[in-house]
Amino acid sequence: MGNASGGERARFAGEKADSFIKTAWLFIQRKSVLPLHPPSETTREDNIRIFGSESQIQVTPTSGKFVPSEKVQDLRDKLIKFMEDHIYPKESDFYKLAQSTMRWTIHPDEEKLKDLAKREGLWNLWIPFDSAARAREVIFGSRNDSLVENKFNRLLGAGLSNLEYGYLCEIMGRSICAPQIFNCGAPDTGNMEVLLRYGNEEQIKEWLVPLLEGKTRSGFAMTEPQVASSDATNIECSIKRHGDSYIINGKKWWTSGAMDPRCKLLIVMGKTDLTAPKHKQQSMILVDINTPGIAIKRPLTVFGFDDAPHGHAEIFFENVSVPANNILLGEGRGFEIAQGRLGPGRLHHCMRLIGAAERGMQMMVQRALERRAFGKLIAEHGAFLSDVAKCRIELEKTRLLVLEAADQLDRLGNKKARATIAMAKVAAPNMALMVLDTAMQVHGAAGVSGDTVLAHLWATARTLRIADGPDEVHLGTIAKTELRKSRL
Amino acid sequence: MGNASGGERARFAGEKADSFIKTAWLFIQRKSVLPLHPPSETTREDNIRIFGSESQIQVTPTSGKFVPSEKVQDLRDKLIKFMEDHIYPKESDFYKLAQSTMRWTIHPDEEKLKDLAKREGLWNLWIPFDSAARAREVIFGSRNDSLVENKFNRLLGAGLSNLEYGYLCEIMGRSICAPQIFNCGAPDTGNMEVLLRYGNEEQIKEWLVPLLEGKTRSGFAMTEPQVASSDATNIECSIKRHGDSYIINGKKWWTSGAMDPRCKLLIVMGKTDLTAPKHKQQSMILVDINTPGIAIKRPLTVFGFDDAPHGHAEIFFENVSVPANNILLGEGRGFEIAQGRLGPGRLHHCMRLIGAAERGMQMMVQRALERRAFGKLIAEHGAFLSDVAKCRIELEKTRLLVLEAADQLDRLGNKKARATIAMAKVAAPNMALMVLDTAMQVHGAAGVSGDTVLAHLWATARTLRIADGPDEVHLGTIAKTELRKSRL
Amino acid sequence: MGNASGGERARFAGEKADSFIKTAWLFIQRKSVLPLHPPSETTREDNIRIFGSESQIQVTPTSGKFVPSEKVQDLRDKLIKFMEDHIYPKESDFYKLAQSTMRWTIHPDEEKLKDLAKREGLWNLWIPFDSAARAREVIFGSRNDSLVENKFNRLLGAGLSNLEYGYLCEIMGRSICAPQIFNCGAPDTGNMEVLLRYGNEEQIKEWLVPLLEGKTRSGFAMTEPQVASSDATNIECSIKRHGDSYIINGKKWWTSGAMDPRCKLLIVMGKTDLTAPKHKQQSMILVDINTPGIAIKRPLTVFGFDDAPHGHAEIFFENVSVPANNILLGEGRGFEIAQGRLGPGRLHHCMRLIGAAERGMQMMVQRALERRAFGKLIAEHGAFLSDVAKCRIELEKTRLLVLEAADQLDRLGNKKARATIAMAKVAAPNMALMVLDTAMQVHGAAGVSGDTVLAHLWATARTLRIADGPDEVHLGTIAKTELRKSRL
Amino acid sequence: MGNASGGERARFAGEKADSFIKTAWLFIQRKSVLPLHPPSETTREDNIRIFGSESQIQVTPTSGKFVPSEKVQDLRDKLIKFMEDHIYPKESDFYKLAQSTMRWTIHPDEEKLKDLAKREGLWNLWIPFDSAARAREVIFGSRNDSLVENKFNRLLGAGLSNLEYGYLCEIMGRSICAPQIFNCGAPDTGNMEVLLRYGNEEQIKEWLVPLLEGKTRSGFAMTEPQVASSDATNIECSIKRHGDSYIINGKKWWTSGAMDPRCKLLIVMGKTDLTAPKHKQQSMILVDINTPGIAIKRPLTVFGFDDAPHGHAEIFFENVSVPANNILLGEGRGFEIAQGRLGPGRLHHCMRLIGAAERGMQMMVQRALERRAFGKLIAEHGAFLSDVAKCRIELEKTRLLVLEAADQLDRLGNKKARATIAMAKVAAPNMALMVLDTAMQVHGAAGVSGDTVLAHLWATARTLRIADGPDEVHLGTIAKTELRKSRL
Repeated sequence: MGNASGGERARFAGEKADSFIKTAWLFIQRKSVLPLHPPSETTREDNIRIFGSESQIQVTPTSGKFVPSEKVQDLRDKLIKFMEDHIYPKESDFYKLAQSTMRWTIHPDEEKLKDLAKREGLWNLWIPFDSAARAREVIFGSRNDSLVENKFNRLLGAGLSNLEYGYLCEIMGRSICAPQIFNCGAPDTGNMEVLLRYGNEEQIKEWLVPLLEGKTRSGFAMTEPQVASSDATNIECSIKRHGDSYIINGKKWWTSGAMDPRCKLLIVMGKTDLTAPKHKQQSMILVDINTPGIAIKRPLTVFGFDDAPHGHAEIFFENVSVPANNILLGEGRGFEIAQGRLGPGRLHHCMRLIGAAERGMQMMVQRALERRAFGKLIAEHGAFLSDVAKCRIELEKTRLLVLEAADQLDRLGNKKARATIAMAKVAAPNMALMVLDTAMQVHGAAGVSGDTVLAHLWATARTLRIADGPDEVHLGTIAKTELRKSRL
Repeated sequence: MGNASGGERARFAGEKADSFIKTAWLFIQRKSVLPLHPPSETTREDNIRIFGSESQIQVTPTSGKFVPSEKVQDLRDKLIKFMEDHIYPKESDFYKLAQSTMRWTIHPDEEKLKDLAKREGLWNLWIPFDSAARAREVIFGSRNDSLVENKFNRLLGAGLSNLEYGYLCEIMGRSICAPQIFNCGAPDTGNMEVLLRYGNEEQIKEWLVPLLEGKTRSGFAMTEPQVASSDATNIECSIKRHGDSYIINGKKWWTSGAMDPRCKLLIVMGKTDLTAPKHKQQSMILVDINTPGIAIKRPLTVFGFDDAPHGHAEIFFENVSVPANNILLGEGRGFEIAQGRLGPGRLHHCMRLIGAAERGMQMMVQRALERRAFGKLIAEHGAFLSDVAKCRIELEKTRLLVLEAADQLDRLGNKKARATIAMAKVAAPNMALMVLDTAMQVHGAAGVSGDTVLAHLWATARTLRIADGPDEVHLGTIAKTELRKSRL
Repeated sequence: MGNASGGERARFAGEKADSFIKTAWLFIQRKSVLPLHPPSETTREDNIRIFGSESQIQVTPTSGKFVPSEKVQDLRDKLIKFMEDHIYPKESDFYKLAQSTMRWTIHPDEEKLKDLAKREGLWNLWIPFDSAARAREVIFGSRNDSLVENKFNRLLGAGLSNLEYGYLCEIMGRSICAPQIFNCGAPDTGNMEVLLRYGNEEQIKEWLVPLLEGKTRSGFAMTEPQVASSDATNIECSIKRHGDSYIINGKKWWTSGAMDPRCKLLIVMGKTDLTAPKHKQQSMILVDINTPGIAIKRPLTVFGFDDAPHGHAEIFFENVSVPANNILLGEGRGFEIAQGRLGPGRLHHCMRLIGAAERGMQMMVQRALERRAFGKLIAEHGAFLSDVAKCRIELEKTRLLVLEAADQLDRLGNKKARATIAMAKVAAPNMALMVLDTAMQVHGAAGVSGDTVLAHLWATARTLRIADGPDEVHLGTIAKTELRKSRL
Repeated sequence: MGNASGGERARFAGEKADSFIKTAWLFIQRKSVLPLHPPSETTREDNIRIFGSESQIQVTPTSGKFVPSEKVQDLRDKLIKFMEDHIYPKESDFYKLAQSTMRWTIHPDEEKLKDLAKREGLWNLWIPFDSAARAREVIFGSRNDSLVENKFNRLLGAGLSNLEYGYLCEIMGRSICAPQIFNCGAPDTGNMEVLLRYGNEEQIKEWLVPLLEGKTRSGFAMTEPQVASSDATNIECSIKRHGDSYIINGKKWWTSGAMDPRCKLLIVMGKTDLTAPKHKQQSMILVDINTPGIAIKRPLTVFGFDDAPHGHAEIFFENVSVPANNILLGEGRGFEIAQGRLGPGRLHHCMRLIGAAERGMQMMVQRALERRAFGKLIAEHGAFLSDVAKCRIELEKTRLLVLEAADQLDRLGNKKARATIAMAKVAAPNMALMVLDTAMQVHGAAGVSGDTVLAHLWATARTLRIADGPDEVHLGTIAKTELRKSRL
């Protein structure tokens, strides 16, 4: 991990420092899409005196529209520092363990970093304030138990909107190792969201709290090898009521996280009633991964990566018996929960992909400023400049779309934001793939190897054109909205 | 203009009405990127009771971030209605005149519509509040002349920021005929901006006021046939001081608007001092188009369109004598003014391109819902759905980028927003070309003809990959920013 | 037409001549895809002595596979010279007339050049030898009339295969003015092909011979404004038998060539029997354009081009009475003829598009070697080099595909070559559009104007993504073939 | 490997068989780009009697231009059968071993299949007849030793041209496992080519013969981690003469094949003279991999794949002493040899990529005909049909370009074919990536996993945009040729 070019970089610094130093000051207070500090009038360069407020034209104060609040900006700064101090330096160690014969174990530093993140207030930031509120209501209702409530509250994030989380999640996405350090990794966030929104008091206490604490991890067992699972009505796994239990039989795969030794909970989707209407046949049930009858068959690979120790498991369920009250919401509500889960939970992927692409940009530029071919730096080749600019344009456009989708989710809710969320889901992985591919190309052979994070980030991004509903399904959602819009 | 398919459309309405009526209600309160009314909590579908404000987690109110203010929304609604009531129905008439032997005259309804727009308060909306403030200061300073001031003020727009104007300019961009009706057309807005920002009291009174009133029009004579004018240092036109006059000699082309019979003012860029440093050689000077020595050689065409009666002129200047005080800001300041003009003035093009693409979307969907091939509506062909969805994604991403650029222009000023403005300038025409091309394809032969607005919108968009600085120059600007960023 | 930069070019020649002169000789004997002379062993640079033919390994002589025969190469050289001597220098004159008020008349030099082309043996080269043979058989059969036969034979081209013609048609495609000079223009070739393959003796004598002689021109009236004509079963024009006549009623548009004053023949497609099976309802009939009841309503435009004096007409037929024996092949055979016509006739478009793109390449490189921006020639900008290389790759790939399609048409016939022809029809215009667009961009504003041929070539290429069957239909043909292939 | 959907496929067969059986016969004699048998006149469907050869028009026999000879076609049929009988059924076994802890060993069936391929005459088909001739000359010269010569000849392939091999190599490329079975795998072919063209008698006997026999394998140690090796002048490895030996010091990586237990020979590129002109500093030397001082540091990964048991090695050379007569051609000739090797040797990659893409096409269509989503087969979704057609177009265009490049290599030699070879090298991997990516998408999660060959084929193709010279270098070669062409 990292580019083994310290020597060359040093040499470069010597050569190029002078020419850059003079441009440096011009940019030192440069404001990007996300300025370091909230903009003030003094940053405006053309010092036109604003006056005439007594005249009939009302002067609109230029309130920044696309700028995070100070609270979010502070968290963002903290997060960036944490990444630089603790995550990037560890990437190589984590990766080496995951390549070794000890691949399916957890690096001891991971748990240490989790503790640190908790202490820094960078824990469970993903939790939307309204989901938190709902869970609090379910547990405490009218009761007065401030001691317990305080403890529970501490686990419920920072009361952020999805839009606000977007500015932070992006930063975590810059490293494959990062999200779980902040308890913001997939599929745990989606699973926790399910419990926050649909769990009853017992389910929340038993399954959610340890997840919120980061003590356990979880898997989401929905996709099946035999059928096109992008169409959830195809699912064949059977969940049959038998006395006080449900009996589960079926084959699942791509249950990410199930290989993790800390994995405790599986949320299993299957059919409780084959005779019900198409969208009422599915149910979701909470399953302890250690229940007899569950067999983890093998880790699947993504390109050549097995993503140890997280892993993507193929799992067989043979007469797995689960207490009846583990059912979520009730029989036949599986499709409804899936819809709820797929919306916000999976927008996180898009946010992380922005960060992955940003990492790609940074590495590509770094490399181009260090590497020399055919008599000049790659950064001095015209075609590179054109490529890097095109990447930046795609990245900015897509970042704004993802933030917009998050904002619509906050303002309009899951269903009404659906088309925009679908757009983000198509746009984000495709953009990230383009940027990361360009970055790999600039890195030459190192780019496709395990010596940089690029190929791994790329493979992960490629999966998200499928895992989160294939592009084709999202395009269909968008197109249908478009057709209806034109009729009204 | 329009699709000659009234009969078929009626038939379709009969057939499809039922199936659409039931989906209609689902969408009737749908909120798009730009909701009709400011969002309220009641639009949130998942009616989770927000409570617990007494708890330690502070609930952030979901203030919409990317939503225009009520004031802007009202102007937007008014503008949309004006377009539907007065502009779209006139497009065909205007186009017919512009194809006839009377092509270089103005349709009488155009001036009537301008009066109407003025009365409706949809006049000069493009003027940024700070430019307005500067002009007011220059003219009135400490003087107290409220009567004149009030009259002048009425011409200075609605005190909008660039971001706010973005939501409105887009609407005008839906029709090639529209911008000038609202006195928001190119190149007049750029020229007026120059006078607002750099004109002295006399220049403002003589040249700006008639332009603000919509009584005259103007041209910007910068591009030259012999040299790559994207690099302004190449410009060869000579402006020589001679007593109380300047003598201009040179050849210009692509002076848009110069064919318009109302055109009065040319802003001419040329070199006053060949010995000065590279960026101090150019000056800008105000020239009455009727000055002896000016010869309009011919109208140029854009993909066969001469854009009558507006027109793109080739103009020869032979010993054209102009009063010395027509110089703007002073000798050698031409480059500086050009920079100022190119920034905000030309972001308008991007905004209009969003509207042009939106028009393309609307027409493509309409056509697809009316036209039948191989046994089904085009809208029922899978590949069409995929195309329309991809267009929508590109459009939304680009709209957000243009709005972001406008906002950065407001918050950070011309120079600091430079890279983002460059991104918008590359992204907007390329997106519009893609969307309009798809729309043409769906329209078949009608799409490339003069019977729809599509080919003309397309040709205009294509020009903007060149006219507003070629893509390549903008990509260079973006790339350089990227390289510098990585060093700091 | 042409780039008004003689002066600059001369300057460049002075500056750059030296550096190029030394690389010149390295390339002076360079062999391109189409070498000037048939390759011989002496062109092989690594002079390995081929021997050992007595050994058990049989040495295969490297007979060039993708190289035209000497006969074709000679025609090609002649054609290139004709273009350089007579066509390119006239382009500007022809274009000026077509922009003037005399636009719908023929430039006198056009007929002179046609005579010259006839004398040079560059006449009717498009006629496939088997179509020629069929026509000869129909007219002469067993009769012995060598004098007339010889005269007729002289009009029947050079006995080329479609593949061989591909190497020649491409050259003609470099100029919009060229094909008709060689009597190889659309839609005449398609119409002549129809008569060669499906005409009876009388039809051939009356209608075909004057077309072969270049004395008359013709139109193909198939597309209708009201329906999606890409699906020919939609056609609504009525052709009703009435005694010894057929009565035609209907509206057609995009009848290219119908505005030409020399246009004499219209081949009209319509329905003779609405009760017949779907593909047996259509018939084709020969119609004298001067028949009462025919009204040429207006010329349509392509982008802003009306393509005068050729023109694309909208035509109304109102009770147009035509002799019954003008029907082609018989009632209900229209679909069959259309299929026959669409195959080879329209592959010519693809060949011409290769030439149009080649013209674009040549102009883009020329410009890049003459034009200076930001301190260096465009040809020295890295991004330009990358673009020009990508254009060349697309061009070569597409040329090979078009030649392959022509060869399959020769070897396997219309139906079996269908999928490959469809590929060529999608690939060729899309490639040409990309190359010409890049060339326009390199030319700046001149590129989109009427001052170079680029915008006009581009507009023509764009039309061919629709006129020749829309891309979508061809993609469907290809996909179906692919699906069937996999099952066998 | 393969799609675990036997059950579903069987069901599908039942459902769809009838509807396909009737289209089957229509296509049973369908001729593709590469017809099963040489075309004859009877395949021509429009049975126009060719006659009139007595007339003045000479009928050109339709000799197929782009069709392989009967000899090549026979080898092709044999190869296809071998793949179906022996390779595809083994892919899964080979892959499983390569994923196990025994990953760095050779599957016993591999050697058996090699013997079988030899017996079938499918051995060393890659050897160009002229390279074979040169090697024979070097060894036997004027000597008469027919017994040995016969044995040697049997190892020298089938006397094919590069074009002829193109039709065969493509077939091998359909499986990652295949090429080495036929002794046609990289980097062995390139290394053998070096020895055939530049080896002296001793070098050929000692190193080449065991390679030709398939007893040993080899690596090519050129790329270095510290420098941009696409510019070979950057190479830093030192090869110093010391008495009768050369001493090698340096670090190499991406030495593919070096992990193979059968690997015996490394061809090492390094600098013998730092003071020589830039392109005379490099030399190549033959190195026994077991020489002391050579340390295989680790296998590199490509998107997570280590490509065991073949492997891509990082290798350190520390004072490695090699006999002086192991130098190839002589000191300072390394660059020259590299040029010779890179031309033909690496065109094989392009040929194989055509096959890889063809495999992707076949799998994507198969899957689409078996998999059902949202109520219909994927093959019935319109957007899929559009995608598959676009893939086919790209594939055919690129196949033709690769064959053209091979033919130019045969006819014009390495240098003159350079631009076209460069085009093939850019086009082939990019096309294969597009096709394979589409195929993965159609396969859903299975597509990115190890359960199909797609992700592995994709990763390999991606590497070839770098390994074989990065795209950027090839684009530069093409652009330069284009610029020079326009000047002559």
